[in-house]
Amino acid sequence: MKSYRKELWFNVNKRRELINITADVHACLMESGIKEGILLCNAMHISASVFINDDESGLHQDFEVWLEKLAPEKPYEQYMHNGYEDNADAHLKRTIMGREVVVAVSNGKLDFGPWEQIFYGEFDGKRKKRVLVKIIGE
Amino acid sequence: MKSYRKELWFNVNKRRELINITADVHACLMESGIKEGILLCNAMHISASVFINDDESGLHQDFEVWLEKLAPEKPYEQYMHNGYEDNADAHLKRTIMGREVVVAVSNGKLDFGPWEQIFYGEFDGKRKKRVLVKIIGE
Amino acid sequence: MKSYRKELWFNVNKRRELINITADVHACLMESGIKEGILLCNAMHISASVFINDDESGLHQDFEVWLEKLAPEKPYEQYMHNGYEDNADAHLKRTIMGREVVVAVSNGKLDFGPWEQIFYGEFDGKRKKRVLVKIIGE
Repeated sequence: MKSYRKELWFNVNKRRELINITADVHACLMESGIKEGILLCNAMHISASVFINDDESGLHQDFEVWLEKLAPEKPYEQYMHNGYEDNADAHLKRTIMGREVVVAVSNGKLDFGPWEQIFYGEFDGKRKKRVLVKIIGE
Repeated sequence: MKSYRKELWFNVNKRRELINITADVHACLMESGIKEGILLCNAMHISASVFINDDESGLHQDFEVWLEKLAPEKPYEQYMHNGYEDNADAHLKRTIMGREVVVAVSNGKLDFGPWEQIFYGEFDGKRKKRVLVKIIGE
Repeated sequence: MKSYRKELWFNVNKRRELINITADVHACLMESGIKEGILLCNAMHISASVFINDDESGLHQDFEVWLEKLAPEKPYEQYMHNGYEDNADAHLKRTIMGREVVVAVSNGKLDFGPWEQIFYGEFDGKRKKRVLVKIIGE
C-alpha cells in the first residue's frame, strides 16, 4: 500500500469565498503515482469546508445567500461563541457544507461524474489556512 | 490491496425520491470478495445524494417537507443559478443530505448498526443518473 | 494492509449532548499500530452523529440553539415519523451534523489541524448507543 500526504495553503482576502481546487487535488494525485485507491481532502480548520458541487457562479451566489439565511453572520451577539471571537457563523456554515470529501481513485484519475468539482469553502478568511490531501492505494 | 468499482444507474420518474440501495451496495461487496476494508458510495451528480438513515416512510415524508422548508424549489427565480436551469434547490438539498457515505467492511459485511440503511436521494430526476461504489481492502 | 475495528459505547443521561471522543479515538489508533492510512469514525445509530469541530462550550450551546431552530424537537406531531416514535427531530439534527468523519493517519497520528476535535453528537439519548472506529493502513 502506498500513501501520500500534502497540505494546500490559502490566504483569502475576504471573510467568505469558494475556490475551485480540483486542479490542485488532481496534481497531488499525479504526484502520488497512485492508480487505485481512495483520496481524502479535508479542511484542517473548523471554520472552513471542502465540498463537491458545480462550478457555476450563480450557484455560488445562491450558496452565499442561503448560508446567510440558515446561519447569519450578524448580529454577532446572537452566538455564545462570540464572547471569544466573531466567527460562530463560520462554524455553522462549515457544518452545513461539510469538512471533507472522499473521492475514488480509479485508473489513475479522480473518479468523478461530469460536473463534480472540489471546492475550498472559506467562511472566516483574511488569514492563512490549509487543506489536507491524503491518498492511499496502489 | 484489492480494489473494486461499480456504477449503479437510476432513472427516477419524479423530481424527488429516496431509494433504498442497501441491497445493491451489499451485492457489490459480495462481488468484490473484499473482507476487510472501506467502502465509498457517492452520487456522481451534484443534484443527488447518498446518505444513511432509517427506512421508514413517515421519516421520508418528513425529509421532503423539511428540505422544502430549508431549500424550497419555488419560486424558481429566487436563485441566481436558475437563469440557466431550474434545479438550484436540488444542489442545496443535496448539500444538506450529503454527497457520500463511507462504510466499514468487516468480516465480509457492511459494518452497520441495527437501523442503518443506504439511500440514493434524487432531487432533480426524470433522467438517468448514477452512483459510484468503490471498495478497497483485502 | 492492516485493519482495526472497535466499538465505543455511550449511555447519555440527557436527550441531547456533545461529547469529545478525540482521546478515545486516539487510543484506538495507538492500539491498532497503524502508522499510515485512513480512519473512519461513524455513529452506528441514525439519531446520532460523529463530527469534527471546536471544543468550546459557547459554540456547543450555539449548536443546540441552532439545531433546535432548523429541526425543532416539538411539537412532536409536526413529524410523520412520530406516529411511531418521538425522535424525528433527532434524525434531522443528525443529518445536519453528519454521520461520520474520515481522518488521515500520518506518522502514527490523527492528522489534524490545530483546533480539530472529534465529537459524538447524541440527539436521542437515555439509552446505550455506539460508535464504530475502523482503521486501515500499514
